[in-house]
Amino acid sequence: MEFKVNSKELEKLLNKIIPAVPTRTPMQILENFLFEIKDGLLTIYATDLEISLKSSLNIVADENKSFVIPAKLLYDVVRSLPDTSIIFEINSNGKVKLATENGKYTLSYLEPDEYPEIPSFPKEDEKEDLNEFSVSGEQLRYALEKTAFAMSKEEMRPAMMGTLFEFEEEGLRFVATDGHRLSNLLMKNINPELKTQYIVPERAISVLMKIIDEKEVKVYLSKSHISFVLSDIELITRLIAQKYPDYSSVIPLENEFRLKVLTKELNDAIKRMMLFSTSNTRKVKFSVTGSNLEISAEDLDLGASGTENIMCEYDGEPLEIGFNSGYVNDILSHLGSEKEIVLKLHSPTKAVVIVPNEEKEDQSLMMLLMPVRLNN
Amino acid sequence: MEFKVNSKELEKLLNKIIPAVPTRTPMQILENFLFEIKDGLLTIYATDLEISLKSSLNIVADENKSFVIPAKLLYDVVRSLPDTSIIFEINSNGKVKLATENGKYTLSYLEPDEYPEIPSFPKEDEKEDLNEFSVSGEQLRYALEKTAFAMSKEEMRPAMMGTLFEFEEEGLRFVATDGHRLSNLLMKNINPELKTQYIVPERAISVLMKIIDEKEVKVYLSKSHISFVLSDIELITRLIAQKYPDYSSVIPLENEFRLKVLTKELNDAIKRMMLFSTSNTRKVKFSVTGSNLEISAEDLDLGASGTENIMCEYDGEPLEIGFNSGYVNDILSHLGSEKEIVLKLHSPTKAVVIVPNEEKEDQSLMMLLMPVRLNN
Repeated sequence: MEFKVNSKELEKLLNKIIPAVPTRTPMQILENFLFEIKDGLLTIYATDLEISLKSSLNIVADENKSFVIPAKLLYDVVRSLPDTSIIFEINSNGKVKLATENGKYTLSYLEPDEYPEIPSFPKEDEKEDLNEFSVSGEQLRYALEKTAFAMSKEEMRPAMMGTLFEFEEEGLRFVATDGHRLSNLLMKNINPELKTQYIVPERAISVLMKIIDEKEVKVYLSKSHISFVLSDIELITRLIAQKYPDYSSVIPLENEFRLKVLTKELNDAIKRMMLFSTSNTRKVKFSVTGSNLEISAEDLDLGASGTENIMCEYDGEPLEIGFNSGYVNDILSHLGSEKEIVLKLHSPTKAVVIVPNEEKEDQSLMMLLMPVRLNN
Repeated sequence: MEFKVNSKELEKLLNKIIPAVPTRTPMQILENFLFEIKDGLLTIYATDLEISLKSSLNIVADENKSFVIPAKLLYDVVRSLPDTSIIFEINSNGKVKLATENGKYTLSYLEPDEYPEIPSFPKEDEKEDLNEFSVSGEQLRYALEKTAFAMSKEEMRPAMMGTLFEFEEEGLRFVATDGHRLSNLLMKNINPELKTQYIVPERAISVLMKIIDEKEVKVYLSKSHISFVLSDIELITRLIAQKYPDYSSVIPLENEFRLKVLTKELNDAIKRMMLFSTSNTRKVKFSVTGSNLEISAEDLDLGASGTENIMCEYDGEPLEIGFNSGYVNDILSHLGSEKEIVLKLHSPTKAVVIVPNEEKEDQSLMMLLMPVRLNN
C-alpha cells in the first residue's frame, strides 16, 4: 500500500512524538514508532512502557495498515529533507520505501503485533472511576515549572520521584520534594472539585513540559493512569502507585523571623558563593542582623573563600544558618519572577520557609529548605 | 601591595587568555595564570608548555609584583561580578583578597618561580634567523578555516598533526592532511618573500581561531617557534620539528574527467546519505553518467538504504567510485562559500581533486579525497 505526506508536516509530528522514545532500553522494539493508518488518518505512537505519546495527521492513503518503524532513523531522514512530498510504499517483504522527487530511502519495518500494547486509557474496569478536568496549558506549565525541579532522583523513595497533584477544596495543589527542599504551589483557579491525589512520574512531567503549549489541556484521571490531551497530542502515563509522604508535617508554622531580600541580588551572590562552596555539603552560611545579610562560603582544599553583604529587612534575633548552596540557587532560580522574597526563619536547625513577598491572588506558593549544620 | 582593576575589563582579558590553560594536566601549576605587574601594566600569561598566551592591561598599582593564581576560579569569580571596581590585595601569607563594594573573595596564590618559564621569543641564539611578516586577521582566519580541518589526529605521524605554512615565490601556501583527505590553499597576496616551511601544531591553530579578529596580525618566525601578535594578545607556540610529507606527489595531475555540481545540493544529499552509511568505512557510492550523479549508501545491519539523484555536468566515461561520507561532508562544508564545485576524476581507485568552479584571483584552493573500495 501507499500513502503520501508532506515532509515538514511529518517532521512536526515526529518531533512531538519522539520524546517518548527511550534512548537506551533493553527492549529494542521501543526504539520504533508505531504507525497506524486508518481511513485517511495517520496516528503515530511511541512508548517507553511508562509514558506514551500519540498524535495524528490527515494523509492521502489507499488502504488501512499498521507497522513499526525505526524512530530515530526515520526522524533524521525526514527532518533532513526539504519541504517536499514523500510517498511511503509499504512492501510485503518488510521494507518501507520513501520516495521524494530526487531520492529513495528504504527502511525495514516490523508488524504491529511485535510492538507492546500502548497503555490504553481508561481501562475497561476503570471507566466509572474516571475523573476529568480542563486547565490552560499556560497555567499547567507555570505550576510544573515552579514545583517539579524539587522532585527526588533517588529510587529509594519512589513516591518522591514524582510530582503530587493534590485536589483540595481550595484548588489544585502541586507538591515536589526530595527531603532536602520542597516546593508547594496551590493553584486556586484550577478547581475541578475533586478530592483525591495522584503522583505523576518525573519522566511524564519532563516530556509534558517539552510538548505543552498555552492552549487548553484536557486531563483524564483513572486510578492507575493520567492522560493529558493537548490540542494536537496526547500523553498517557501510569501514576506512581504509592502514598505520598505527609509533607505538611515538615512545614514549620511558627517561623517568626522574617527576612526580606531582593531575589536577583541574593541569587547573583549565591552563584558566586557556589564557586567557593565546593565541599560535599556545598555549604553556604547566612549571617543576618538587622538590615544586613552576610553570606559566605569557604573551600578549605583550595584555601579560597568568599563573603558578600546584602541589604535586607529583618525583624528577628541575629542568626547564623547554613544551607546547601546548590539548593538555595535552585529555589531562587525558580522564584526568579518574584522581585522580592521573604525567608521565614526560626533557628539554625529548623527548616526555612521561602515565599514571594507579594502573594498572587489566585495562588499560594511556598518553598521549604532544610538547613545544613554549621560546625562552629 | 594593592592594585585596582575594572571587573569587565579584567573579564575580557582573562577570557582571551584562558584558552591556553590546559583542562587536564598532570602539572597542576599550569592550571594557573601568571600575573605580572610592572610599572602600572598588568600582563597575564597562561601556557600548556606548547602554546602560551599573553595580554596586558593598564591598571592602578602601587608596586611591582608577580604571582600565580588559580585560572578557572579567578575567571569564574570575575565573570560572575557586575561591572565594578575590584581591589586586589596581595598579602604576604599567600593569600590574594579581591574586594568589591559588597563582596570579599580570598584566593591562594603561589610565587612566580614555581611557574614554568614562558617560551620566550625569539631565543637569544635565534635572533639572526628571525623572520617576520604581516597579514590581515581576516585572511589568516579564512586560510585556516579552509585547511585546518584536514589535520590528522593520529599521533603516529606527528608532522601531519599540524598545518603546514609553506612560503613560496607565489605566496603563502597552507596545507593540512590526514592521509585520507587534504586541503591545499595558496594565498597569493600573503607574500613576505621567504622560502621556507613551518608546521604549526593543532592546538595553536585552534586557539588562534578562537582569538583572532579582522585586524592586522604580525607573525614572527624562528627555527623553533612562531608568534602571532594580534592587536591585543600574543600567541607563541613551538613548531613541530618534523619534515612535512611530500604531499605534492599524491596530487594527481591528470584527472581528466570533470564533474560540476551545486555545492549545497550535493552537501544536503550527502548529509542524508550519512544516515545510511554507518559501517566502519562510512561508504557512500557516486555513480555518474552524463548529466546525472547518483549517490547511494546502505546500512546492511538495519536493512536500510538511500539513493539520490543530482543534476550535474560531466564530460567523462560512466564511473562508479566510493568515498567515506564523513570526509565528503567535511570537504563540502568547508567549500560551502562556493556555489559550484568541480570534482576531477579518473578511476575508482585514484584520488579525486575538488576545486571551486570559479577560482578567486588572489588564491588557489584545492582539496583532495582518497576513494574507498567498492566491493562489487
